[in-house]
Amino acid sequence: MERNIYLSNISLEKAIDMYFERIKDFRLGTEVVKTHEAKGRITAKPVFAKISSPFYNSSAVDGIAVVAKNTFTATDRSPLRLKEGKDYIVVDTGDPIPDEYDAVIMVEDTIKVSEDEVEIIKPAIPWQNIRQMGEDIVEGQLILPQSHRIRPVDIGALIAGGVFDVEVYKRPRVAIIPTGTEIVEPGAHLKIGDIIEFNSRVFAALVEEYGGIPTRFNIVKDDFEKLLETVKKAAEEYDVVLLNAGSSAGREDYSKKVIETLGEVYIHGVAIKPGKPVILGRVLNKPIVGIPGFPVSAFFIMENIVKKLVNFVQGYDIKDKKYIEAQLSKRVMSSSKYLEFVRVKLGYIEGKYIATPIERGAGATMSLVRADGVLEVPEELEGYEKGSVVNINLLKAEDEIKNTILCIGSHDIILDIAADLLAKKGRYNLASAHVGSMGGILALKDKETHFATVHLLDMETGEYNRTYIRKYIPNRKIAIIKFVKRIQGLMVKRGNPLNIHSIEDIAKKGARFVNRQKGSGTRILLDFELKKLGISPRDIKGYEREDYTHISVAAQVAKNNADCGLGVFSAAQIMDLDFIPVANEEYDIVIPVEYLELDGVKKFIEVINSEEFKKELDRLGGYDYSDLGKIIIE
Amino acid sequence: MERNIYLSNISLEKAIDMYFERIKDFRLGTEVVKTHEAKGRITAKPVFAKISSPFYNSSAVDGIAVVAKNTFTATDRSPLRLKEGKDYIVVDTGDPIPDEYDAVIMVEDTIKVSEDEVEIIKPAIPWQNIRQMGEDIVEGQLILPQSHRIRPVDIGALIAGGVFDVEVYKRPRVAIIPTGTEIVEPGAHLKIGDIIEFNSRVFAALVEEYGGIPTRFNIVKDDFEKLLETVKKAAEEYDVVLLNAGSSAGREDYSKKVIETLGEVYIHGVAIKPGKPVILGRVLNKPIVGIPGFPVSAFFIMENIVKKLVNFVQGYDIKDKKYIEAQLSKRVMSSSKYLEFVRVKLGYIEGKYIATPIERGAGATMSLVRADGVLEVPEELEGYEKGSVVNINLLKAEDEIKNTILCIGSHDIILDIAADLLAKKGRYNLASAHVGSMGGILALKDKETHFATVHLLDMETGEYNRTYIRKYIPNRKIAIIKFVKRIQGLMVKRGNPLNIHSIEDIAKKGARFVNRQKGSGTRILLDFELKKLGISPRDIKGYEREDYTHISVAAQVAKNNADCGLGVFSAAQIMDLDFIPVANEEYDIVIPVEYLELDGVKKFIEVINSEEFKKELDRLGGYDYSDLGKIIIE
Repeated sequence: MERNIYLSNISLEKAIDMYFERIKDFRLGTEVVKTHEAKGRITAKPVFAKISSPFYNSSAVDGIAVVAKNTFTATDRSPLRLKEGKDYIVVDTGDPIPDEYDAVIMVEDTIKVSEDEVEIIKPAIPWQNIRQMGEDIVEGQLILPQSHRIRPVDIGALIAGGVFDVEVYKRPRVAIIPTGTEIVEPGAHLKIGDIIEFNSRVFAALVEEYGGIPTRFNIVKDDFEKLLETVKKAAEEYDVVLLNAGSSAGREDYSKKVIETLGEVYIHGVAIKPGKPVILGRVLNKPIVGIPGFPVSAFFIMENIVKKLVNFVQGYDIKDKKYIEAQLSKRVMSSSKYLEFVRVKLGYIEGKYIATPIERGAGATMSLVRADGVLEVPEELEGYEKGSVVNINLLKAEDEIKNTILCIGSHDIILDIAADLLAKKGRYNLASAHVGSMGGILALKDKETHFATVHLLDMETGEYNRTYIRKYIPNRKIAIIKFVKRIQGLMVKRGNPLNIHSIEDIAKKGARFVNRQKGSGTRILLDFELKKLGISPRDIKGYEREDYTHISVAAQVAKNNADCGLGVFSAAQIMDLDFIPVANEEYDIVIPVEYLELDGVKKFIEVINSEEFKKELDRLGGYDYSDLGKIIIE
Repeated sequence: MERNIYLSNISLEKAIDMYFERIKDFRLGTEVVKTHEAKGRITAKPVFAKISSPFYNSSAVDGIAVVAKNTFTATDRSPLRLKEGKDYIVVDTGDPIPDEYDAVIMVEDTIKVSEDEVEIIKPAIPWQNIRQMGEDIVEGQLILPQSHRIRPVDIGALIAGGVFDVEVYKRPRVAIIPTGTEIVEPGAHLKIGDIIEFNSRVFAALVEEYGGIPTRFNIVKDDFEKLLETVKKAAEEYDVVLLNAGSSAGREDYSKKVIETLGEVYIHGVAIKPGKPVILGRVLNKPIVGIPGFPVSAFFIMENIVKKLVNFVQGYDIKDKKYIEAQLSKRVMSSSKYLEFVRVKLGYIEGKYIATPIERGAGATMSLVRADGVLEVPEELEGYEKGSVVNINLLKAEDEIKNTILCIGSHDIILDIAADLLAKKGRYNLASAHVGSMGGILALKDKETHFATVHLLDMETGEYNRTYIRKYIPNRKIAIIKFVKRIQGLMVKRGNPLNIHSIEDIAKKGARFVNRQKGSGTRILLDFELKKLGISPRDIKGYEREDYTHISVAAQVAKNNADCGLGVFSAAQIMDLDFIPVANEEYDIVIPVEYLELDGVKKFIEVINSEEFKKELDRLGGYDYSDLGKIIIE
């Protein structure tokens, strides 16, 4: 096992400063482009106006040009009559004002008395409604400073100032090299151990957003000579090289050795998480970054280092993170050795943003798809307490988050379907966080969600949901929107090879079980049934193995990682499993009464009452929706 | 004078709802594109995973795969020895885990004792460090909903989920038709009355940002038949048509007539300011927008209507405005008949954003270039009081604003030069608002600026600046950073045709004067001199005509709109004017002592003390910098 050693654990900011200091001579040259094609380009020099705009006095309105001092006698009691040609000329917005006139009266303030005569009832003030020469831009004035990214409005000002060509930095051509023996091209036939390569496609799209020109290389297997040759070629032909993966200390990680052979490794290891094992170096006189393979690590390296690099070589110091303040709905723990990036969902409740860290169970690439923002926990902190107000770097538009209805609670696929129908109507989105029924109840108590979806069985009364609401949310006026009764059951492989017909059989037959997480309604149901039957959790093999959704439990069974799990019919159906009914449970929406008035909630209620939604329930099967939409105020 | 009449004054939101309802059948069709080329495209359908990711259990770390239950005896007092092949296999991150193993121990937690043996001191928990099959994405899971704009991270999740092609809406091809007899192409020889056409170039860049494909037509003169023909052709060949300008009620505004002839005008006039005279209609079965010619109006129509339209025809409801809370440093008046867009500068002072409305004197296109954000004053409000906390729609990155040092006060071109040198150093920007010396002093008092630049003459003592600081900012500990002594003088045309040699001569010779605004140091100097000489302001022709900067005063003289003005030597030099010295004044930086410690301020002080900056002062001439950089604590 020959392994590399991390050279350093320096802070992100310091790493970037050090790195850019070392590569500051690798800045790209400049070129002259047409102003109207310069969007997104970085100015190489300050740009000054060549002409004034307007370069003559002009009318700011539609009206008549007059000599102000000749209008001083006009009042509403004695209107002043003016004659065209003698006392005024007609001007439209933008028309030049001849030198002899010094004011314009708006057409709305004139009364037409004949074809060429008007009356006014108020004197004109000198220079009123006149755009003076150079009012917008004065010849010689600075329009744009150096190192400025040209925006559409800048193009307008440049052309108005007579600047039709502009000197900008060249755009960096960025080579992206995917490496690894286990990765395969999308569409290849997959065997165990294969990973479909997609990081390079994400990189290419990001590089384009950063202002670079990406070129993706073909996959290079973990072969030192081959890698050496490819990196050398890339450094010769491109301005920046991205090497993915092979930046950690695994056995086949050649990136460091390749870079050292062809150039220099400046930094290996930065104190961020995820993303630590990044390599910053040069090959020939080109910057090269070795990016870790884990997609989330790779994303944060792209956003926090490569973005700055692609801009740096164009002479631009990019600063475009957008932060909002949000309240944490959960405690966040972090190592004090790293700057940690924590992905969060955001909701907007009663004028406050609520940030909920995305659970580990949410997966890697999907967690990035679902994240609304990123909490950056600084190196010196060990985390934040629940309820802390923190800064969140936004990954989505604020408008979009404000139009999001938050549902925290127990998951069911019908929520995804309702979300989809809601999105189709436009304006509002439903975001659901899967923390189980109890998690939903607690989120309601702490005003961290608009509503919760719950199916909580009272072990004493056998009644669903109401006991829990009364007990845990005494402080708020709550309504229950009846959702569906659903059949919970055991999911087993097609044909039921272990012949499981009841909860008892799981223990009896020694079947490998996948459980749901603590606090989930399904978990409570299982515990209820086990207690009833007098079976100890220790007798269930896999009781401690937790999964977060019905569908992921079903997937474990389908792929033979487990023999059975407890879940809803629709999940079994999607994964083509057999299903043994265990109980009928009430899956309801619990919502503070005041939120029933929110426009987005109203739209959501419309959706679940729609025929389209019921049709989907029929299609899935396993749902009884006879009470759907009934609202019970507790 | 044949004029159109505004049909309506409905609210922006209502106008958009009505318009989109009318054109909802003009949505574009869909097409299938490669996932890796789908960035920015809008999904036409929900997208579900075709395979799970990972589709086998794999290691989440570099380490060894073990059977968890065989490790339960390991403690630090009695380490457990394991043998490769028998008790474990070596796995790297991502390697598949054979069915017989159920946990992975990180390499860091193993002690190598021989080539094929390790010791562990802690048992493994079942399923630890194993990425379970489907952990990231489960087959059949929704990856993206319908009508979602595909981001780089989405591309990763799609490919990981086995989705290599994706059905998206077609991108709209947008025809942009600049019209008007007065507009000319950039580079044409300019005569009085000409306006260089640039709106269409701004539109094209914006349309690209919105996700459309822009095509700019050649300029069409104000000729009804010609316009009719061009618009018809555009509607036949493109998906959306933008017609600029001719949407107001001026004499030559044919847009409405053209649209009515070829199709329908749905809405003419929306209650926003600027931007009211917009036309929303259709020609054939294509949406057409008549956009007003004033560049600022045009910009707000693009951002608030066309952006939504370009997305709407792709089935996307765009919501991407970003707001921050800021405190208003000035009262803002607005008509209650309109939703008004007010451009503002933003500063970040002591943890709070300060918004300063951009003065009218700042010009049109340049005000867009300089604006950091937009305050939207709702229709029902008549404005906001100074000190109100308002929502600002950001036009720049927050980071950039937070790294901006604010200077409010009297303008001098050397501030622009210092700003440019500061920007070159990276990280910090200097933003200066020109409100005159007194405006700067008041901004300091109200904590609305980091520092002020002032040259305020005490008419009693003849001393500069200190009297004013003591009088107006008694509540803060203030420092003066000595900046420059500069020569104020009369700027007259080359050769001094009116033979003006003193302030007295202005009155005596009846010269046309351009004054500076009230509260500016130059205005106070003029008043001081007039008082000394016993001259009444009424004897100065043009005393009431106010301009906001030295350079715009100089420009008025250069272009013969005035015979003289009072200003600094550098402005006269830039505009190639003669200069008659009147007084030497002290132009200083006034700053609260605590801000001297801010990193950005320190960098700014470095800049003004640099040799490079002094060289620039020498080049401009007219500055005495013998005291530059001295800090006096008041």
